[in-house]
Amino acid sequence: MAQKIKTAITPTREEDYPEWYQQVVKASDMADRSPVRGCMVIKPWGYALWENIQRELDDMFKATGVKNAYFPLFIPLSFLEKEAEHVEGFAKECAVVTHHRLEKGPDGGLVPGGRLTEPLVVRPTSETIIGDSFAKWVSSYRDLPLLINQWANVVRWEMRTRIFLRTSEFLWQEGHTVHASAAEAQERTAMMLAIYARMAETFLAMPVIRGSKSPAERFPGAVDTQCIEAMMQDRKALQAGTSHFLGQNFAKASNIRFQTAEEKESYAWTTSWGASTRLIGGVIMTHSDDDGLVLPPKVAPAQVVLLPIVHKEEERAKVLAYTDALAAALADVRYAGRALRVEVDRREIGGARGWDWIKKGVPLRVEIGPRDIANDAVFVARRDKGHKEKTSMPRTQFIAQVGTLLDEIQTTLFARAAAFRAAHTRPIDALADFYAYFSPQDKEKPEIHGGFALAHWCGNDACEAKIKEDLTVTIRCVPFDAEDEAGRCICCGQPSRRRVVFAKAY
Amino acid sequence: MAQKIKTAITPTREEDYPEWYQQVVKASDMADRSPVRGCMVIKPWGYALWENIQRELDDMFKATGVKNAYFPLFIPLSFLEKEAEHVEGFAKECAVVTHHRLEKGPDGGLVPGGRLTEPLVVRPTSETIIGDSFAKWVSSYRDLPLLINQWANVVRWEMRTRIFLRTSEFLWQEGHTVHASAAEAQERTAMMLAIYARMAETFLAMPVIRGSKSPAERFPGAVDTQCIEAMMQDRKALQAGTSHFLGQNFAKASNIRFQTAEEKESYAWTTSWGASTRLIGGVIMTHSDDDGLVLPPKVAPAQVVLLPIVHKEEERAKVLAYTDALAAALADVRYAGRALRVEVDRREIGGARGWDWIKKGVPLRVEIGPRDIANDAVFVARRDKGHKEKTSMPRTQFIAQVGTLLDEIQTTLFARAAAFRAAHTRPIDALADFYAYFSPQDKEKPEIHGGFALAHWCGNDACEAKIKEDLTVTIRCVPFDAEDEAGRCICCGQPSRRRVVFAKAY
Repeated sequence: MAQKIKTAITPTREEDYPEWYQQVVKASDMADRSPVRGCMVIKPWGYALWENIQRELDDMFKATGVKNAYFPLFIPLSFLEKEAEHVEGFAKECAVVTHHRLEKGPDGGLVPGGRLTEPLVVRPTSETIIGDSFAKWVSSYRDLPLLINQWANVVRWEMRTRIFLRTSEFLWQEGHTVHASAAEAQERTAMMLAIYARMAETFLAMPVIRGSKSPAERFPGAVDTQCIEAMMQDRKALQAGTSHFLGQNFAKASNIRFQTAEEKESYAWTTSWGASTRLIGGVIMTHSDDDGLVLPPKVAPAQVVLLPIVHKEEERAKVLAYTDALAAALADVRYAGRALRVEVDRREIGGARGWDWIKKGVPLRVEIGPRDIANDAVFVARRDKGHKEKTSMPRTQFIAQVGTLLDEIQTTLFARAAAFRAAHTRPIDALADFYAYFSPQDKEKPEIHGGFALAHWCGNDACEAKIKEDLTVTIRCVPFDAEDEAGRCICCGQPSRRRVVFAKAY
Repeated sequence: MAQKIKTAITPTREEDYPEWYQQVVKASDMADRSPVRGCMVIKPWGYALWENIQRELDDMFKATGVKNAYFPLFIPLSFLEKEAEHVEGFAKECAVVTHHRLEKGPDGGLVPGGRLTEPLVVRPTSETIIGDSFAKWVSSYRDLPLLINQWANVVRWEMRTRIFLRTSEFLWQEGHTVHASAAEAQERTAMMLAIYARMAETFLAMPVIRGSKSPAERFPGAVDTQCIEAMMQDRKALQAGTSHFLGQNFAKASNIRFQTAEEKESYAWTTSWGASTRLIGGVIMTHSDDDGLVLPPKVAPAQVVLLPIVHKEEERAKVLAYTDALAAALADVRYAGRALRVEVDRREIGGARGWDWIKKGVPLRVEIGPRDIANDAVFVARRDKGHKEKTSMPRTQFIAQVGTLLDEIQTTLFARAAAFRAAHTRPIDALADFYAYFSPQDKEKPEIHGGFALAHWCGNDACEAKIKEDLTVTIRCVPFDAEDEAGRCICCGQPSRRRVVFAKAY
């Protein structure tokens, strides 16, 4: 057995993946548990990543004509009940407000008082409450399409939570649109999925499979749920964004009708689409290593950190002045359409300082010491390379090439993730192989299984349910790019026309 | 009696101010009532204004070292009870979550199920839940100052609501900071109030009085509450932002302690400060007129609207091309440090189109017709002038001067509001005058009273309470710029050292 290499994160991914994840979150200072069951505290480093994701998504949404708005946090119970599948889907996990004040209880402590005549549900998603407004706003085809998004918190009372990936409260955006035809609504569903795929691949360096959910995995009340699915480093799938074609289901539930150009009355067609702080969990699990977080440059809260090195008191002023001048020069650099984000860390805490930024995943660490200054050079380390690998570079060259370096890192991270996914994705045709693929490969590591399986499926709920029951494996999606291929269902042997993606999932 | 001038808003301010306000909100398409008691729907035009306010505030906060984070929506009841005055202040108006699922009730309908062991309060403000995190994050003076802000929704179950001004749910930011000394915390309290004052005066063109609240009007648990107070057009005051020095009260309640540089253990000093969607109500009530909303250019969702005028079909292509070219040229203009915000309205609905944008408060309306194009000119109307007042202007001149025009409008709005406030602010020394000032000036208009009174106050709660009881007039603040002046309390005649601002308030 090889000698164990010391890593900044204990345990390693290999040793205990779920615990490694918690430790990466902790070491990067992105988030904390909270005293409220299943709710998280998003710390500045995690929130800044979310702000960057928000800004890019928001710009992409607005470029397609979407406008932001805001709807109530609370949904009257009767609204939720308007769409039968929908309420069924969310009833088991919602926070219910029943009182509107606190009053002195019999033992002197405060207890809920002022019972509401109708309980209010804290929104788990807002189709029904937004639908109520849309019904008022839409009366003619001239009012369509109506393209609305809201940035909001939502609550789903999850029993088993994991920070960023599954929490009782999370932050997200939810888009809601209304259209005069099914075709236009379907086009919008696809358009927004494409934006999520672009966010994932171009910004988060996270390769995704685009496809439609099986009926059993659809959003409650949707006609079609499209999704992007990414592979995490434990080979599980993460659903990273969904876009729903709701047909006329919610229009009927909320009474969203309009007069057509032909002066007929029609129910409208609606869509909804969302992405959440779960994307942060996806970023962590896709790129991070045993030294901590690794951030894709395009969304990193800081893309460059400058680390002035002062050995002797008499060098201090010179080193700090040189560092500040470099920071000022970098502030004028634009990267990926935004001002470059640069941090300067002046703390004098020795090697721990460099490790802090490694664990925080900053793409480029730049050391600036008296010897470097003498050569008008800086010492550059990339987070996608080993932590000892550092390159001396003339200052002017660094300023000129910082964008190129960041692009290289961004590209490397995507390529690595794509290679990892390719290495753990396999077409499987025999049931025994399928079961073996999703069973522990090593008794010592019961968590480790094959990865994504591309297998035929007949389309029956029963086969899907059996596999889920036996293996906790679900159909992640029917990929859009699946080729037509005659085959037989991995479960029942009935004919199938194409392969779907099976995986364990978050 | 003069003949009544037709206005776009009915009733006028003069006729029925509260109803005028509702109609301005409606006509501008900023917000809607919602089916949830006291909650509002913020429509795109209102939300875009909020986004502009958010962006400016966020930049100002970050420039002082504040970082954004996010804390749970829910506060365990026991947390709220940690600070006695605090819970007392909010107990009567909070939404309480008591259950975490819905289940079938005896009559088949859904009822709350899964009772929580401890009720959760939907945050009315987050001192106590954030304090819990801060207690973990702070251990040494080296961790200080800790400067955190969150953008969030909060809920206060108000019995009487008015859109934007007082709603059960509203959007806000709440800053929370921790410091190693009282002096530093007080400095931060003042710094953030100055940012709110800058937001109000520079961006919203809303003159404000800066001061401290009387003890009775302080935030529950605060040592000092500083505020900015603006005058609305019905002469009532609107508190438009508050910044609280919390002393060690909340640090003690949440156990936020740190080791000082002298290696002693000490409770920290904290501050909190907030501004909300109420600012939108303030903008509406400060500037709007009987034709609808009037927006200060610096925060207007659109600063310029282009209105192509097509009389004949054969002119259409030319007019639209000219309009698009102008829009493209304007897109390159920067105003107040941001890209100019330009809308093009191609609808062909006659005069209603221009009125739509008047009612929406857009600062500059630009008409573009064939005759204007022949002269390479545009026809410009300013929202701060009469709706018939339009000026022909060469296109190139308009592009070159659009920023100047917007600055003029911004300045005019501020000057008008300042003049209005000055006209309705008066030093009052006799009790009878004071009572008369705050009584209806005209039987027909029981709402109209004097405005702000600058009067002496001895500092006793009893005098303040009596005036509030008799007149629903409160001390808005003890202004920072009040001059030392010996006088006698307007209520009891005891000596007083300075005048305070009395007013009716929202």
